[in-house]
Amino acid sequence: MRILQRENVANPQFKKIVIFGAGLIGGSFALALRRANAVGEVVGFGRSAETLRQAQQLGILDRVGCDLEVELGNADLVLLATPVGQMADIMSRIAPHLGAHTLVTDGGSTKSDVVAYARARLGGKLGQFVPAHPIAGAEKSGAAAAQADLYAGKKVVLTPMPENSADSVARVRMAWELCGAVVSELSAAQHDAVFAAVSHLPHLLSFALVHDIAQRDDKDLLLSFAASGFRDFTRIAASSPEMWRDICMANREALMGELQQYADELYGLFKALEQRDADKLEQVFAEARKVRSNWTPQ
Amino acid sequence: MRILQRENVANPQFKKIVIFGAGLIGGSFALALRRANAVGEVVGFGRSAETLRQAQQLGILDRVGCDLEVELGNADLVLLATPVGQMADIMSRIAPHLGAHTLVTDGGSTKSDVVAYARARLGGKLGQFVPAHPIAGAEKSGAAAAQADLYAGKKVVLTPMPENSADSVARVRMAWELCGAVVSELSAAQHDAVFAAVSHLPHLLSFALVHDIAQRDDKDLLLSFAASGFRDFTRIAASSPEMWRDICMANREALMGELQQYADELYGLFKALEQRDADKLEQVFAEARKVRSNWTPQ
Repeated sequence: MRILQRENVANPQFKKIVIFGAGLIGGSFALALRRANAVGEVVGFGRSAETLRQAQQLGILDRVGCDLEVELGNADLVLLATPVGQMADIMSRIAPHLGAHTLVTDGGSTKSDVVAYARARLGGKLGQFVPAHPIAGAEKSGAAAAQADLYAGKKVVLTPMPENSADSVARVRMAWELCGAVVSELSAAQHDAVFAAVSHLPHLLSFALVHDIAQRDDKDLLLSFAASGFRDFTRIAASSPEMWRDICMANREALMGELQQYADELYGLFKALEQRDADKLEQVFAEARKVRSNWTPQ
Repeated sequence: MRILQRENVANPQFKKIVIFGAGLIGGSFALALRRANAVGEVVGFGRSAETLRQAQQLGILDRVGCDLEVELGNADLVLLATPVGQMADIMSRIAPHLGAHTLVTDGGSTKSDVVAYARARLGGKLGQFVPAHPIAGAEKSGAAAAQADLYAGKKVVLTPMPENSADSVARVRMAWELCGAVVSELSAAQHDAVFAAVSHLPHLLSFALVHDIAQRDDKDLLLSFAASGFRDFTRIAASSPEMWRDICMANREALMGELQQYADELYGLFKALEQRDADKLEQVFAEARKVRSNWTPQ
């Protein structure tokens, strides 16, 4: 079925794409481009033979790649959808084999570190790499979780480099837009500062609260009375420890700044409690509620 | 319709109940007891004539009360379902008129302060008051939000006092159980310590994060990239500022202790980031994930 569908695609925008890591991010990218009739052939590489086999069975991949030299020279687009920790190594291995027209993008949650890897590893092919961060997924992982509409209506942030041509950026933008994403652009530093505040810090705070309670002798009693507020506040504390360790380490300077600023905020509330300053508390809560009530995730 | 239904109730467990505050908490209590055919007549008092009229139209109240002396002497059960800040005054007003068999309970989110009010205001009627905290509601408020199944399967914590007879506690427990609640008992101090950790602290932290971001010049940019993690973490930052001001002030000592302990936890994470201790981060995250994944709200 899948092979027939592929053969039916006439003049796809991308004749051949190569995906490193056929899990949630990479698999959904392939499925979305297939649904848009925007891709000819999808070839996958990855560490886990089992994941690659499963991705092929699920119609995500046409083939599992064996030889980088053979697959990369005529590829239109390469997606790096592995954990960020593996990307530097992959960049070193693919750089010699990328065709002159082959573009590369990625799905990493931090961008300054990925850009630094690219500068160190991609050599003369640096300009062909347009970094990206799709704001989607996270709770689930693996090829089985991949879905064609994962990116539909979701944000993807590109962090183009001075070395990128306008054409390269436009083509990578088109790929993500064909997946249904709403694409915007920031510098890598801007990106990491923004996500330190609205994503990395909240994850750290949520992990910290659950860890704080988990240390206590009466944790079972405490948890037995926790209700829906606690449930929502701590949902992200069930995220992958490895992935969040890597994100925190990759973005540690921005995150440390956020943590310091947040600690100052908490100190202000502590002083208000200490001084029985009910007005101050109400003012902070009211300002927060106003902003939160007027905000809806896009 | 409602009046017919009331007249059909034969031998209800509570012939007459009186509710102070006919909003979400009080209104749902009345509707739940009605559905269980456990109540004869429901009389309401409250500050807002409009809310009382609406509660009567909605079938929550049979009558709006005019005279405390007339209504309280033959009441089986009184529920204080106003903001905690109004309870001391109401206790002073009702104490002289409570019948010898009239029991009183409440719906306040903090308990040591309510017990202290009762000790100061109820005089010889103190033993008739069995404090309670229903763990339900919060996002919505008002009579229109009241529903008969608000307490179904939800926890209600009683914090009985030495002055309560076993019979009084059993009868108040029965009332909440007839509402469908799962009733447990803690001391007032235990209750406030538990809820400081699993409810009051998370609310404070969530308000603090949104307030922190709301102060910044680039808050619109930041919020435009906030996604589902931020959405869930900050849902409780849209809670009522007045209510949470009162809760924080009422439970300030336990909350200050929690805030101090949480600040220590954050300091540990800050040091781990500073020292590039990735293992420590992963260990904290993994422990939090394990506890959070094994927990489900009851």
